[in-house]
Amino acid sequence: MPVPVATHTSPRAASVTVGVVQQSVAGNDKQANWLSSAEQIRSLAESGCRCILLQELHSTLYFCQTEETHVFDLAEPIKGEGHAFFGQLAAELNIVLITSMFEHRASGLYHNTAVVYDCSAEIAGTYRKMHIPDDPGFYEKFYFTPGDMGFTPIDTSIGKLGVLVCWDQWYPEAARLMAMAGADILFYPTAIGWDRNDSTDEQQRQRDAWQIIQRSHAVANSVPVVVANRTGFEAAPDSTNDAAGIEFWGTSFVAGPQGEILAQASTDQSENLIVTLDLQRTETVKRIWPYFRDRRIDAYNDLSKRWRD
Amino acid sequence: MPVPVATHTSPRAASVTVGVVQQSVAGNDKQANWLSSAEQIRSLAESGCRCILLQELHSTLYFCQTEETHVFDLAEPIKGEGHAFFGQLAAELNIVLITSMFEHRASGLYHNTAVVYDCSAEIAGTYRKMHIPDDPGFYEKFYFTPGDMGFTPIDTSIGKLGVLVCWDQWYPEAARLMAMAGADILFYPTAIGWDRNDSTDEQQRQRDAWQIIQRSHAVANSVPVVVANRTGFEAAPDSTNDAAGIEFWGTSFVAGPQGEILAQASTDQSENLIVTLDLQRTETVKRIWPYFRDRRIDAYNDLSKRWRD
Repeated sequence: MPVPVATHTSPRAASVTVGVVQQSVAGNDKQANWLSSAEQIRSLAESGCRCILLQELHSTLYFCQTEETHVFDLAEPIKGEGHAFFGQLAAELNIVLITSMFEHRASGLYHNTAVVYDCSAEIAGTYRKMHIPDDPGFYEKFYFTPGDMGFTPIDTSIGKLGVLVCWDQWYPEAARLMAMAGADILFYPTAIGWDRNDSTDEQQRQRDAWQIIQRSHAVANSVPVVVANRTGFEAAPDSTNDAAGIEFWGTSFVAGPQGEILAQASTDQSENLIVTLDLQRTETVKRIWPYFRDRRIDAYNDLSKRWRD
Repeated sequence: MPVPVATHTSPRAASVTVGVVQQSVAGNDKQANWLSSAEQIRSLAESGCRCILLQELHSTLYFCQTEETHVFDLAEPIKGEGHAFFGQLAAELNIVLITSMFEHRASGLYHNTAVVYDCSAEIAGTYRKMHIPDDPGFYEKFYFTPGDMGFTPIDTSIGKLGVLVCWDQWYPEAARLMAMAGADILFYPTAIGWDRNDSTDEQQRQRDAWQIIQRSHAVANSVPVVVANRTGFEAAPDSTNDAAGIEFWGTSFVAGPQGEILAQASTDQSENLIVTLDLQRTETVKRIWPYFRDRRIDAYNDLSKRWRD
């Protein structure tokens, strides 16, 4: 195919520098974890990042390895202490900040929610995780009611952000709907890892699949994708088997609008990524590979079915 | 995530050996090209392949580099000479054979059509390319009316085959609809290549994007994906610029249901691939990563819109 020629017609900024914080988490002391994240956020802001993404449920351990009612004590309202902490930080540093939280919406009603700030202590927008997983070690259906806000990008000073959360990453539908609503960049805070009992080959396939599906959302929609994943081993609570738990595979990454990897973190270290995204590139790529021109919407109705039987 | 445990509950065969023919094409002598393909098909059948995929429009040069009315002479009815040739071959070799053709449906009405045989000279099913590209060097909208048969897998003795064609490969919607209709394997006959004027980096991004998006269909739907792409340089007709034309990038490949590459051809050689697919693996993968369980069909209606504005 011919060379995409650079063009400059978008009303958005020509580029934006984004930061990603990949962390291991040692315990459920939320204040300590917030301070740890804040240190990295400050460092990234000082390095010029205008938008920073934290990983899924960064305030605590990944608590879904078991189903325990006392765990609901970790939740808080959207405008709780985490909001006060991170809102103030976003305002002070004058950044767009994407956080993730265990939302207590009402008694007996909880969500896995992303909260976005835009250079202010006020909330720019929220997203409640729409697709909720449930498999051994990831008992999320016990804790989280599926989101009821749909797939709506959050408008900020750097563009419309399509924020999705973890299990959402496996669904091309979610990314497409965000892109069709004008998302300029897709963000995935996530917490996924290996079972140490799996073979190395199986572990490799899983991590590759996870990266491929998210890179494919960049390809299909011609937008950059920014992913923050947790790292470190978290033991299964109350298990007598030392191997029981999740080895979060890190590998946070940023991909450009052709799915190309622009930066990638290690599997096993707490570290940050800094990438300057060329926001004009989306327009350039879409002009030469105009997928949205040719969608067969006359033949897509069955996508809203459970199964075509 | 935990180890997927092998299970054996599907009514399908436990495995099937598939073959892929990647070829360069020297001219528009259809008989010569059919004989060349037939030689490879025979070789693959002798090696044990039960299902063989040819590349897009394998009977001729890729004729869409220019818009010329005389090119319509290359088209033929579905039950034309190509049908007679390949149907007989499928019957003789007792194989499932996936061919691609320039279909003359009626005067002034043409399609880019895949025709599938199942161990018989009779046609098992057809698929008319639904998404039609059009960009410099790929003027397909001039030649092909978009398909009007929707996304329906073709039932054969080895399973339900989700046959899609080239530009369809960029659309997660197409793969999803095939999978939701029970496709056991996705097949993509394709003809895509580089502009020699592009930088090496740009060429790399394009080929990677093409492979990522198709591997992602395997991941999203937990089914294998089989891709046959053309190879070799085809000069742009009537051009005085020797560099003008398409350098088809080959790279035909087969991926398993986690998107893992099982075999991959070179960029620049005519060659065949042989892969034995474990058809039980789909069931195993779907049990541990059950994406279809959690699709938010209540929130997907806008996928049938052109844009969410």
